[in-house]
Amino acid sequence: MQAVLSDGKVVVAGSETEADILAKGYGRKKGKIELSLEEAAFLLETGKIQIKDEAGKEQNLEGFLEHALDVSPKFALRYLIYSDLKERGYAVQPGGVDFWLYPRGAKPGEKPARHFIRIFSESDFLSLNDLAALLISARNMRKEPIIAVVDEESDITYYEVQEAKFESVEPGEDRGGSKKRKAKTTLLGDRVVLWDADLAESLYRNDFYGKLTKEKRLLLSLVEAAYLMKKGLLETEVREQKSENRSRESDLVKERSHKPQTSSLKPVNFERFVEYANAVESDFMGKYAVYEDLRGKGLVVKTGFKFGSHFRVYKTKQQKHSSYLVHVLPEEHVFSMQELSRAVRLAHGVKKRMIFSFKEKEGAKSIIRYVDIGRMKL
Amino acid sequence: MQAVLSDGKVVVAGSETEADILAKGYGRKKGKIELSLEEAAFLLETGKIQIKDEAGKEQNLEGFLEHALDVSPKFALRYLIYSDLKERGYAVQPGGVDFWLYPRGAKPGEKPARHFIRIFSESDFLSLNDLAALLISARNMRKEPIIAVVDEESDITYYEVQEAKFESVEPGEDRGGSKKRKAKTTLLGDRVVLWDADLAESLYRNDFYGKLTKEKRLLLSLVEAAYLMKKGLLETEVREQKSENRSRESDLVKERSHKPQTSSLKPVNFERFVEYANAVESDFMGKYAVYEDLRGKGLVVKTGFKFGSHFRVYKTKQQKHSSYLVHVLPEEHVFSMQELSRAVRLAHGVKKRMIFSFKEKEGAKSIIRYVDIGRMKL
Repeated sequence: MQAVLSDGKVVVAGSETEADILAKGYGRKKGKIELSLEEAAFLLETGKIQIKDEAGKEQNLEGFLEHALDVSPKFALRYLIYSDLKERGYAVQPGGVDFWLYPRGAKPGEKPARHFIRIFSESDFLSLNDLAALLISARNMRKEPIIAVVDEESDITYYEVQEAKFESVEPGEDRGGSKKRKAKTTLLGDRVVLWDADLAESLYRNDFYGKLTKEKRLLLSLVEAAYLMKKGLLETEVREQKSENRSRESDLVKERSHKPQTSSLKPVNFERFVEYANAVESDFMGKYAVYEDLRGKGLVVKTGFKFGSHFRVYKTKQQKHSSYLVHVLPEEHVFSMQELSRAVRLAHGVKKRMIFSFKEKEGAKSIIRYVDIGRMKL
Repeated sequence: MQAVLSDGKVVVAGSETEADILAKGYGRKKGKIELSLEEAAFLLETGKIQIKDEAGKEQNLEGFLEHALDVSPKFALRYLIYSDLKERGYAVQPGGVDFWLYPRGAKPGEKPARHFIRIFSESDFLSLNDLAALLISARNMRKEPIIAVVDEESDITYYEVQEAKFESVEPGEDRGGSKKRKAKTTLLGDRVVLWDADLAESLYRNDFYGKLTKEKRLLLSLVEAAYLMKKGLLETEVREQKSENRSRESDLVKERSHKPQTSSLKPVNFERFVEYANAVESDFMGKYAVYEDLRGKGLVVKTGFKFGSHFRVYKTKQQKHSSYLVHVLPEEHVFSMQELSRAVRLAHGVKKRMIFSFKEKEGAKSIIRYVDIGRMKL
């Protein structure tokens, strides 16, 4: 096959091969057949094409790659991913974002592309904003997005990105009205103790709240306590005079005042409790909103600390292992690629889906978004 | 056992039990025997002590915990960890940072404490500064530090923290002088291609640099290329006129200029190459310094991207699986506890040590520190 490189474009010369080239999934017909730089480089490297410049001088791969890089700074990454996909037997077409990927064996034109691919280097960053925009594009185009990351060893990892779908067998809980008695509890800094043994056992065994101690007391986290307060199942008292802030960065040796402070316990409502919790824990509000939302979907939500995420989530109360890890991020969060890789790999290793949650403004109010990112075997 | 709570202190009343209490590892003799709040709460909960206030009124656990929390805001965490360690059969003594831990079965006084424990809640943060300070304290006290994290379910995870010890069987490489010929390479954005098939194969097979393609070309990362340049094994050219910065946050749809830019390739020295690389990759300098340091120790260093870290490190060239994951952090980094948990758990799952690397100022110059954090089964 013969082609001419001119003004950053590669045009196939000699019309006899046109149908053949298009049938193989290369090029687009614009009068003559035009090849993308990746297509041209791939055909050049595999010895299927000869490329000459306008002066008729033949290009070797080295010269062509340098030229391509001049035209497109991201060319190296694009080319590595293009070659990888071609070698795996996919039809790939260059496009705005960054490639269209067709089902294996299919040819462009025969079937629509199912995925689009966004390319990144290991050292790139990806903001939650961009991730959200990616999902909006995907919805509009009715395609599934893939994030392809080229690492420093020029290996490629593919991630599928989608809105999280939580399967829950049970309907959302609504036990608020059914119980008359509010449980009395003691607020112990960043957790809450429920003393009534029967109630403790019922909340623990039936609804998976907290941790039941040997002595049949229930230790609740602040999110759990806030949720149960909102449902009218629990009441607690907060010390009013005292500043409960813990410093974010703890000193190695803490001087502790050993004088009891003059303060008194006051029963609090949900709003005041959340204020208190927000002072104890810097990201409490965001975490609580997600906790409430997930519990409202009928899911069972526990801490995901051992898996490095805020929550582990069970589809049902009968499930032995959780299905999802949910990590709550501030809107302005920017991922490093390592961070994405670490989270997704860990979740994958324990057979769970990795879900990132964040708030997004929709008009006047904000909604909670869940993005599921998983390793994709192409 | 009888004790009196007075002014935030718990003092054992009745001298007949003093020797017995001390022998069991509780309390310190200061005239009378004084119990820490955790000790007192633990003995109260297990029914081994009666505590009265100064007015002679008996305290129940609920009242005592509330009192203890008034005195020490971190009491809940301290108590949970204290109880956990006692139940596991350890002797524990309260101390500045936060507990001393004695070998299992040993009693304080008999043997010195081997570890000290710093306590955290799942929602706490830990700065690299604090982590470095922790290691300095440990060195000064000749104790090993443990980080204990209480999660929202009141479960406790223990992490051992130590200066990383890299075992390397081979001496540091010093092949700089032995090879006469400098390899010619092409800089392709964020990687470098070495075209000479023999040299490519030798660098790949003997020293594990880069990725060897089917066509026997070697794709090197920027850190690898910089290192080989510094050793005088490689030369490359950088396009001088052009700004090579890639934007950190990629737009979803990129407009690309298809006009080749007027620029020319210039051979560069190591310093200029590092400048170039630093413009392409935001954290290049920090990463490079660690890469060079590790290679200098005779270790084989490759990207750790698939494990969510900057580097995976092999002790020898013969090793099939890498032994360490090394992640490079800026000095001012602050860990969330989830981040620590995620990194350590992932490393543990693939049988590697998790090592965090950062620069620390020592007088006028800065040195590279390596902190190894691992899950600890107590």
